[in-house]
Amino acid sequence: METTETQVDVLVSEVGPRDGLQSISRSMPTEAKHRWIAALADAGLREIEVGSFVSPKLLPQMADADEVVREALKIPGLTVLALVPNLKGAERAHSAGAHKVTMPVSASRAHSMANVRMSPEEAVEEVRRVSQFRYSLPPGRRPSVEVGISTAFGCAIEGQVPEDRVFRIVGMLLEAGADSVGLSDTAGCANPVQVRRMFQQLRREAGDKAGAAHFHNTRGQGLANVVAALDAGVRTLDASQGGIGGCPYAPGATGNIVTEDLVFLLEAMGLKTGIDLERLISARTIIQEALPGQPIYGCVAAAGLPTGFVYASGKAVIPQPGAPALL
Amino acid sequence: METTETQVDVLVSEVGPRDGLQSISRSMPTEAKHRWIAALADAGLREIEVGSFVSPKLLPQMADADEVVREALKIPGLTVLALVPNLKGAERAHSAGAHKVTMPVSASRAHSMANVRMSPEEAVEEVRRVSQFRYSLPPGRRPSVEVGISTAFGCAIEGQVPEDRVFRIVGMLLEAGADSVGLSDTAGCANPVQVRRMFQQLRREAGDKAGAAHFHNTRGQGLANVVAALDAGVRTLDASQGGIGGCPYAPGATGNIVTEDLVFLLEAMGLKTGIDLERLISARTIIQEALPGQPIYGCVAAAGLPTGFVYASGKAVIPQPGAPALL
Repeated sequence: METTETQVDVLVSEVGPRDGLQSISRSMPTEAKHRWIAALADAGLREIEVGSFVSPKLLPQMADADEVVREALKIPGLTVLALVPNLKGAERAHSAGAHKVTMPVSASRAHSMANVRMSPEEAVEEVRRVSQFRYSLPPGRRPSVEVGISTAFGCAIEGQVPEDRVFRIVGMLLEAGADSVGLSDTAGCANPVQVRRMFQQLRREAGDKAGAAHFHNTRGQGLANVVAALDAGVRTLDASQGGIGGCPYAPGATGNIVTEDLVFLLEAMGLKTGIDLERLISARTIIQEALPGQPIYGCVAAAGLPTGFVYASGKAVIPQPGAPALL
Repeated sequence: METTETQVDVLVSEVGPRDGLQSISRSMPTEAKHRWIAALADAGLREIEVGSFVSPKLLPQMADADEVVREALKIPGLTVLALVPNLKGAERAHSAGAHKVTMPVSASRAHSMANVRMSPEEAVEEVRRVSQFRYSLPPGRRPSVEVGISTAFGCAIEGQVPEDRVFRIVGMLLEAGADSVGLSDTAGCANPVQVRRMFQQLRREAGDKAGAAHFHNTRGQGLANVVAALDAGVRTLDASQGGIGGCPYAPGATGNIVTEDLVFLLEAMGLKTGIDLERLISARTIIQEALPGQPIYGCVAAAGLPTGFVYASGKAVIPQPGAPALL
């Protein structure tokens, strides 16, 4: 990977190796995960959620999380994230050396029970335990603790989720010691008006602990919601290469927003991501080779970059003869 | 169709029967076009571009435009649009009784030559001829003359299109007598920053003659651009059922934004469209039956409406047992 000192305007946090792969019943071989994560980092991604420390009986696709974290740590400049549902997972993630752990806390009680077999309040208590555990570690080795509030914009089981319930949980999480709290559209039902309003309120209530926006493209609204989140000041966005992933407990809610299409949006809007779209698109072949037949999505990869495309940095794409898909 | 007196906040202008069908090499049978247009109107669409008055040698799919216009005129409350490239087409559209004609004028010279075999300046002169022809008709029978500026946000052949060239053409079109001038992202390369800026300028320069936004979803950016267009005050948006259509002279640029996904976006944002999503989704079967194997797109049709979805009017969707795709 070329390390670059350039600041980015928006941090694109890649969740494919965790959120994507855990929603596919087959397991990607560990060696392919290593290559995929390296290729993503080589394309310029600076933060990757590489695995989940859950029971391998529950999610055998994530059984190699330790090994994947350790390998990813060798990539200079990459922030390595792991999902952990509880203290036990956080201890494993810490042993492996993850820079950050991310914990799911659902605003919907029904979704919370289905997803992590805990009530929202119990999930908040797990965040408190993980946060306290973190402070028991030597200062240089403390993973930061991020939370994404699942079903923050609505739930496939419960339907509409009252916003005051979401912000009550935001308050509880900050009090419990979370370093950042983001909002996730698990069921793919958010709209830009709601997104703008809720991220504005999140910023008012959480200040610099206001975290990432995590959108699903279930109903094709993902990038429309990104535009609203950017307006509200959000500067960290989750996405998944090829749009793989979703939530097995939110029926029909397959598909994170596609990293390639998000990066195109941001760069075209003049927001630097530090990511090279042509290298990023090339990395898709690793998924296709390691998981033959797995559907992957994305319009930019299909249509290629527009004639005369210029990155936010000012770098122009030089049309390459023989590469029509990228012209 | 139930006619309804309710005002809409945003006018969704359906272009599938023209823009969609002309990009498919097979012809939809005339009888199926009648049924499809009736079903779209029944779902609440108030404006439909039903055909194109071009040479049937060039576009045999549009050879029945007269008949389709005449049948569509029987639908109470429906505004019937037809595309016309020149005066001859406008005369035919007028004979058939179209309420409005829409004319394509490209900002890119190369695209203009490929699409209508005229320079942009010659295309503006055609608009002048059609506008003058219109004033030769009795006042009650004058079709209004709309123009969409193709390649306004960039061209697949020329690449970036200077914005001052676009606005020079806007000025020429207003001077030539156009009733409304909109901007079209023919090549699917617009971004929300550019969309906001250009529609704001269009409103300053064209006032109440500022027309529709026409976006393609080529790179997955269509609804993101809609959010920006709404911010800039645009209140007429073109879309195509199932996302069919595109421009045969803009390589890779297949796919208008999907009407179903657009209507979901608008209604979820609290903007009334007057359209019933369940009826709209049902109308897709007419395309599928009349053009077997034709790919059609759309995430809302695939995922269904979210649990607890409420229209901008306040009408709630009642989950129907046995209809899981719409729950």
